[in-house]
Amino acid sequence: MRSQLQTLLQQNNIEGAKALLSPVQSVDIAEAIEGLPESMQVIAFRLLPKSEAIEVYEYLDSAVQQSLIQEFKRQEVIDIVDKMSPDDRAKLFDELPAKIVSRLLQQLSLKERQATALLLGYEEDTAGRIMTPEYISLKENLTVSQALERIRSLAHVSEVIYYLYVTDPKRRLTGIVSLRDLVVSSPETILTEIMTTEVVSVHTDTDREEVAKLIQRYDLLALPVVDREQRLVGIITVDDIIDILEQEATEDIYALGAVQSDGDNYFQSSLVTVARKRVVWLFILLITNTFTGWIINSQQDLLQQVVALTAFIPLLTGTGGNVGSQTSTVVIRGLNTEEIKDLGPGQVIFREALAGALLGSILGLVATVWAVFLLKGNLSVAMSVGISLVAISTLAATAGSSLPFFFRLLGLDPALMSSPFISTTVDVLGVFIYFSVAKMFLNL
Amino acid sequence: MRSQLQTLLQQNNIEGAKALLSPVQSVDIAEAIEGLPESMQVIAFRLLPKSEAIEVYEYLDSAVQQSLIQEFKRQEVIDIVDKMSPDDRAKLFDELPAKIVSRLLQQLSLKERQATALLLGYEEDTAGRIMTPEYISLKENLTVSQALERIRSLAHVSEVIYYLYVTDPKRRLTGIVSLRDLVVSSPETILTEIMTTEVVSVHTDTDREEVAKLIQRYDLLALPVVDREQRLVGIITVDDIIDILEQEATEDIYALGAVQSDGDNYFQSSLVTVARKRVVWLFILLITNTFTGWIINSQQDLLQQVVALTAFIPLLTGTGGNVGSQTSTVVIRGLNTEEIKDLGPGQVIFREALAGALLGSILGLVATVWAVFLLKGNLSVAMSVGISLVAISTLAATAGSSLPFFFRLLGLDPALMSSPFISTTVDVLGVFIYFSVAKMFLNL
Repeated sequence: MRSQLQTLLQQNNIEGAKALLSPVQSVDIAEAIEGLPESMQVIAFRLLPKSEAIEVYEYLDSAVQQSLIQEFKRQEVIDIVDKMSPDDRAKLFDELPAKIVSRLLQQLSLKERQATALLLGYEEDTAGRIMTPEYISLKENLTVSQALERIRSLAHVSEVIYYLYVTDPKRRLTGIVSLRDLVVSSPETILTEIMTTEVVSVHTDTDREEVAKLIQRYDLLALPVVDREQRLVGIITVDDIIDILEQEATEDIYALGAVQSDGDNYFQSSLVTVARKRVVWLFILLITNTFTGWIINSQQDLLQQVVALTAFIPLLTGTGGNVGSQTSTVVIRGLNTEEIKDLGPGQVIFREALAGALLGSILGLVATVWAVFLLKGNLSVAMSVGISLVAISTLAATAGSSLPFFFRLLGLDPALMSSPFISTTVDVLGVFIYFSVAKMFLNL
Repeated sequence: MRSQLQTLLQQNNIEGAKALLSPVQSVDIAEAIEGLPESMQVIAFRLLPKSEAIEVYEYLDSAVQQSLIQEFKRQEVIDIVDKMSPDDRAKLFDELPAKIVSRLLQQLSLKERQATALLLGYEEDTAGRIMTPEYISLKENLTVSQALERIRSLAHVSEVIYYLYVTDPKRRLTGIVSLRDLVVSSPETILTEIMTTEVVSVHTDTDREEVAKLIQRYDLLALPVVDREQRLVGIITVDDIIDILEQEATEDIYALGAVQSDGDNYFQSSLVTVARKRVVWLFILLITNTFTGWIINSQQDLLQQVVALTAFIPLLTGTGGNVGSQTSTVVIRGLNTEEIKDLGPGQVIFREALAGALLGSILGLVATVWAVFLLKGNLSVAMSVGISLVAISTLAATAGSSLPFFFRLLGLDPALMSSPFISTTVDVLGVFIYFSVAKMFLNL
């Protein structure tokens, strides 16, 4: 069986290897893994379901147990895993048993943890990726003075000792005690008497944005991370969350400006990367703009007759774009910060459309006066400009407020509704409205 | 002197009152203040220079001392102060003595503290406004066991006991001890032996954004706030900073979308407020757009001859605006998060201009092909479109990257360089370039 397993792994047939191991007894799997070359041991081990992994691990020779932990940071191993698609990884890699996670985390440096995160099975932007092993856990039946004794002996390994995590014999998180509670309680008190059992915790695959929101909502200094069986595997500290909130804000801002973001520092990336991050959106917008051009081109006769109409195209499309940008900016930010929560989409869109009509009326009046002045009294064109501006502004506000909801409904990030995107979309409809209104006023 | 002071205060002649008090002895000022109506006592008191205020306070009758503290939250008093201009307040109101600040903060609820912040002399968005009195300070000569004893007795008043602040007999902040250090040290150790003397602290008038950056840089859970003489007056906790960072991000995002922000919840404000927050920018942009209209209008002859040129105006101005928006988005965010710090303005602008030229070339090629197709082979116009696009894109990137630096140079928020603003500015130059290039190609 060992040679069969080795052949499958050499062929990169990960699914085949998983199927092969599935009916085999733990003790036999352990033997097979021990016979594999070192770089394959960890891959084979990661294919085991969680419940089996811990059993196999216990059967392994202690030297192999140790080398397995070391293998997690080998570059070749990481490369193999990196090549799999995220879906495959999620399908093939079950959670690691909590015992192995904590042993791993404690032996790996921060940098090594980040490199091996793939192998650990934690996808990007999840709690698993940002948790640290620098916490102190205490057994339920300890007294306050025993707990303080343990903290004293462990304080050099752990920076964060403001919250202590209380676990049952199966490593399951059952409560939290703050250092403050320990300091003010009498030495003989048992931890279970003073611990808080209403613990806010997250799972290893919880999105980091969700983690940030919980820490923010409950004003926490740290948040425990547990696996499927409620076993404590790490904590996330508030200082990491601050950095994440800043990154998330940058991502939102980039999205609103129609720039792709991938967590890299924009100002440290090469010119080609910069162009790549921006060209896709510019291209999509260019395509949309060709529609505007096509509509204008189809009205050559009208424009030939009344060439003065041309002068107001940028004003109308520009103002429409600006009203739309403003609207989508506030609605998207409202959705992302949950300020908008209590209002339904209908209410928000209706209110924004009203605001758009109001703003359009004010600006339309100004634009009409200006047009009369520029065209030395051509009232028909001036009226067309004014009336179109009211319509375009209302439409832009409606589009700018409804599209983010629509994007969210489709499961997309509302911030994809960038200002450039909304401006460009409104352009197409803007020129269409303008020409229709103008034809009416000019009796053409 | 008492009646003279009362008359000046009744006339709202605050400067006169200040001048009147200036040469008088502390004991006489105390007597004069005691004779004033209650609502004037606190105003007169706030006009004293810091060094004098504490002496006068000591001379006051203890009943008056107590009522003075109460006066700080009286609505009429707050209204009087609210009517002064921020400059006047800063000029007239010296810092309050630390002793009075801590007494005040401890007696006022969070809401009352916010209402009286003006009277305390802390301007908006400063550390003074967000600090809390919920800290524990310890005298330098205490032993660890005495310190723990004091913490036990005070833990019910203060939520934040992870850092303890060590002060000298003059209340000056001289060090910090963490609860962790206390727990792991032997009971007889003197605080000065284990405290950290390199304390990161801020002044009451430090900007809250600066406070957030310090907490973020040093991964702190709380930051002490001191007055001019290094006396501890409050602390700022990390959970407040998280909320501030979110508000600041919202302000940046609103500014980029050309929406005014004032800290209020946009979705809870009235339609009129919403319109007011947006109409100023829209109006400025409308004015800018009229220049574009004016340039187009001045080229009526050209457009009459080659009406096909009109079809590409939105595409050119739109793409220019999009490139400009992208550029200003990344540069402004870079300035705000200090990612850009190591690069000089010259380097950033040059790189962005290059990126603009690169993107313009790619998009120009596509646009030319499309124009040939739309115009069924009119090469001169198509070439004008392509070449203009390269020029406009380069120009937009240059403007989008240099204007934020220029705004910062003027002491303005770079984020005022909103996407709508940059798009609209680029429009004006865009049509000008387009017509110039077209005239060349068409030999007109």
